[in-house]
This record gives sequence, C-alpha cells and structure tokens, in this order.
Amino acid sequence: MTYCMAISVKAGIVFCSDSRTNAGVDQVSTYSKMFRFDLGPDRQFVVLTAGNLATSQATIAQARRDLRENAALSLNTVKSIGEAADYLGEVCRAQQEKHSGQGFQASFLMGGQVGTRDHRIVMIYPEGNHITSSKDTPFLQIGESKYGKPILDRILTPDTTLETAALCALVSMDATMRSNLTVGPPIEVLIYPNNGFDTTRYFRFEAESEYLRELKKGWDNGLRDAFNGLPQLNWSRQDAHALPTDDSH
Amino acid sequence: MTYCMAISVKAGIVFCSDSRTNAGVDQVSTYSKMFRFDLGPDRQFVVLTAGNLATSQATIAQARRDLRENAALSLNTVKSIGEAADYLGEVCRAQQEKHSGQGFQASFLMGGQVGTRDHRIVMIYPEGNHITSSKDTPFLQIGESKYGKPILDRILTPDTTLETAALCALVSMDATMRSNLTVGPPIEVLIYPNNGFDTTRYFRFEAESEYLRELKKGWDNGLRDAFNGLPQLNWSRQDAHALPTDDSH
Repeated sequence: MTYCMAISVKAGIVFCSDSRTNAGVDQVSTYSKMFRFDLGPDRQFVVLTAGNLATSQATIAQARRDLRENAALSLNTVKSIGEAADYLGEVCRAQQEKHSGQGFQASFLMGGQVGTRDHRIVMIYPEGNHITSSKDTPFLQIGESKYGKPILDRILTPDTTLETAALCALVSMDATMRSNLTVGPPIEVLIYPNNGFDTTRYFRFEAESEYLRELKKGWDNGLRDAFNGLPQLNWSRQDAHALPTDDSH
Repeated sequence: MTYCMAISVKAGIVFCSDSRTNAGVDQVSTYSKMFRFDLGPDRQFVVLTAGNLATSQATIAQARRDLRENAALSLNTVKSIGEAADYLGEVCRAQQEKHSGQGFQASFLMGGQVGTRDHRIVMIYPEGNHITSSKDTPFLQIGESKYGKPILDRILTPDTTLETAALCALVSMDATMRSNLTVGPPIEVLIYPNNGFDTTRYFRFEAESEYLRELKKGWDNGLRDAFNGLPQLNWSRQDAHALPTDDSH
C-alpha cells in the first residue's frame, strides 16, 4: 500500500508520501511516489501517486513525454490546477484502459500553482475525475488514509503554518506506519510556499533518520501523557447502569 | 457502519461498541450491538456484532432460541469459547446462506469464560471461522477499525488494568467517531473480570454524556499538547536535501 497527503493552508502546500510498494508481502520494494514538475516561474506541480505501480509510472512517463514533445495538451499548456487534474486523470484513464485486467487502478494527489491563481490541491480518482480541499478539510489523502486521519482532523486549519502542517503530516505518517506494515520509509516531504513557484524545500527521511526516531518517541510519550491525564471514570459497580433486559430476541 | 472492540488482559475482558446502524445515509438508526448471555455461575458470553443487521439479529435470535429449546448444541452445551465461536459462526453462515444476495455478511466479537478455563476473546468471520487475541495484540476489532487502532497499539499490554483498558477503548471510539460519521453513540462498555462470571459492570454513554464530552475535550487538549511538545525540525531551506533529479521517467 501507500500513504500520501497534501495539505493546503493559506501559506502554501505541504506534500508528504511514503515509499513502500508491495505486490504481495514477499515483493516489497522502495519507490518514490513524489514527482515534481518544475515548469518555470509561473507554473509548478507536484504529484503523489497511489495504486498500481505500472499505471502510475506510465501516467507520469506520459505526462513527461507530452512536455518533451510539446504536445497541444500538457502540464505546460493547462491554465489551472483543475485543468491539470483533468489532463492527468485522462492520461491515467487511458493507461488503465490499455490493460483490461483488474487491479490496475491508480489515484493521484496533485498540487501547485499556475500563473496568478492561488495554489491549490486536488485528488484525482482512478476514473479520472477529481475533488479539491476546503476550508473545513484543508487536506487530501490517498492510500492507507484512516490510521493517520484523526491527527489531521484535529490539528489542521487554513491558518496552520507550513512548518506545523509538515510536522502534522509526519505525525500522521508515523501513526500509519505504526499500525500498518505496508507503509514505510523513506518519507518525503515537500513544502510549497504560496507564490513561491519553487519546489526545492524538499526533505527525505530515511528509516534510520535520527529526527524521525525522536519524533516517534516524542509522540509516543506525548500520547501516553495525554492518555494518563484524561479524566477518570469511577468504573466501580455502584456506578454501573443496568443492562436493559433483552427480551426482543 | 460499526465499531466494536474486545480487549483481553490478564485481569479480564473489556467490550466496547457503538450503536449506529445505517442503510444509506438517510436511513440511520440506533441499535445496540452488545448482547449478553448470562448462563450461570460457570458460563458467561458477550457478543458484539458488525455487518448486516438482519443477519446479525437472526444469528443472535437463533442462539437464544437454541438456548430456550435446549438444543443439543447451544451456548449452554459448548465446552469452551472456541467451541462457542464455532457454533455461532455456523449459525451465522446458515443465516447468510438463506439469502443469496450480496451484502448480507456479518462478523462478531465474542468473549467470556466457560468453567475452569481462562477468559478469552475471539473474532468470528462471516465465513464462520475465527481468530483469537495474543499477548502482543491483546485486542480484536470489527467494523471501522483503522481510525482507532493507533491508540490501542500504543497503550494496551496484557498487564493493562481493566479500568485503563476501558478508558483506552473509549478514546479509540472517540477517535473513530471524530473521523467517521457512521459510528456514533450510545457507546456501550462492559467490563468482565477474570473468574467473575458476572456481566453487570455495564456502562452506557449517551450522546449527551457529560463524561464523554469531558473525555473528548481532555483527549483533544492532550493531543494538542503532545503535538506542541514534539521536537521541532528546522524546516529552513538550508536544511533541505536536494530532490534527486528524475531522469528515469
């Protein structure tokens, strides 16, 4: 499996992805799932991939080919992130249709900025359509998204700083790796500041990363402290409500 | 959907279940998913249900009928929790086979104690087979299990007290309700102390429960504090690793 997030706050976008790919538990490999399209001072895209590796690789390859060959429609010609999502969704759908078997689906997170428009993130479904984030839910996820969702739900707002959003993404990734073996390092983080048109704030955390280890330990201890500080209930028998008699069955 | 947990520690078992049932988002109802079989001073079972409501109700009804009619095989005749699981799995499979359509599957958590054997918990699959918990994983879950798994993974060990395990179950339930609308109150908790042969330590938390609200707030604040106390990374550009040039695509 895979776990990728894109977080869009007022200050910009944070991208975060794991790098574990598996086709069965004995065929586990490491592949980056973060692809950067640096297309100049008014056009920047970052794409994160989940799902079938052949499909996602073929989709990214086609997008790069269209750029090289100056195709009529490419990431160089689209006028917005929405148009870019339509384009990438169409490329991906075409790849999937080449192979009639099951299990060749892929989905994408894409984010970036085009021209004078605000930065934006989208999630592209295997069917080619897409959704964007909102003020209430300033993030999108693909892959094993449930384990790491509660911390994103609690921390992120449109006013969250890029640094805090990046930290939140790492904690969400840590929770996922703790509970699901198919998500693993290296962890990649890319911070895109609004109107920066620059995707060089990139960080890669290997399995042996000292910081990841510290973060994991800090979060573990913090959670334990939070748990130990919770209001206690008197679980004594006197407090027990009566179990309703179940005569209906 | 549904979220149910059973936690087996040395001191006994904690059961916890939500009560929201939905067939489509506009057909949401409240049903208890916790069923108690108090069969005397050497035989106690608690069953939690997930999946199709018709199938799980029919399964529980059949188990009660077999008891009333003194069937040759019933929860009164089985010699262990394992045999009880085989029995309930068979009853459920028979119910499912009556209805040939899709989506009639149900799964169960069962726990309790029979005679001089230790207390035990099992998860019964729709196919009728079952698994039990282990020292390393002293809990079982059915339904929407991913959101609430990280906290169980971190806190629970075989030496955890029943009170702490119950609190942990509530926190896991809270995390799930926060991130998934299809899981909701009332929340039921039942604490079974080893060799107690007594299922009256039962607690039911309504949506407006003062304690649930305090717990939610306490956990929210605790998580924020834990997050704010995490080791910070210097996310400045100087620290950035270079993004590897991607010429392979």
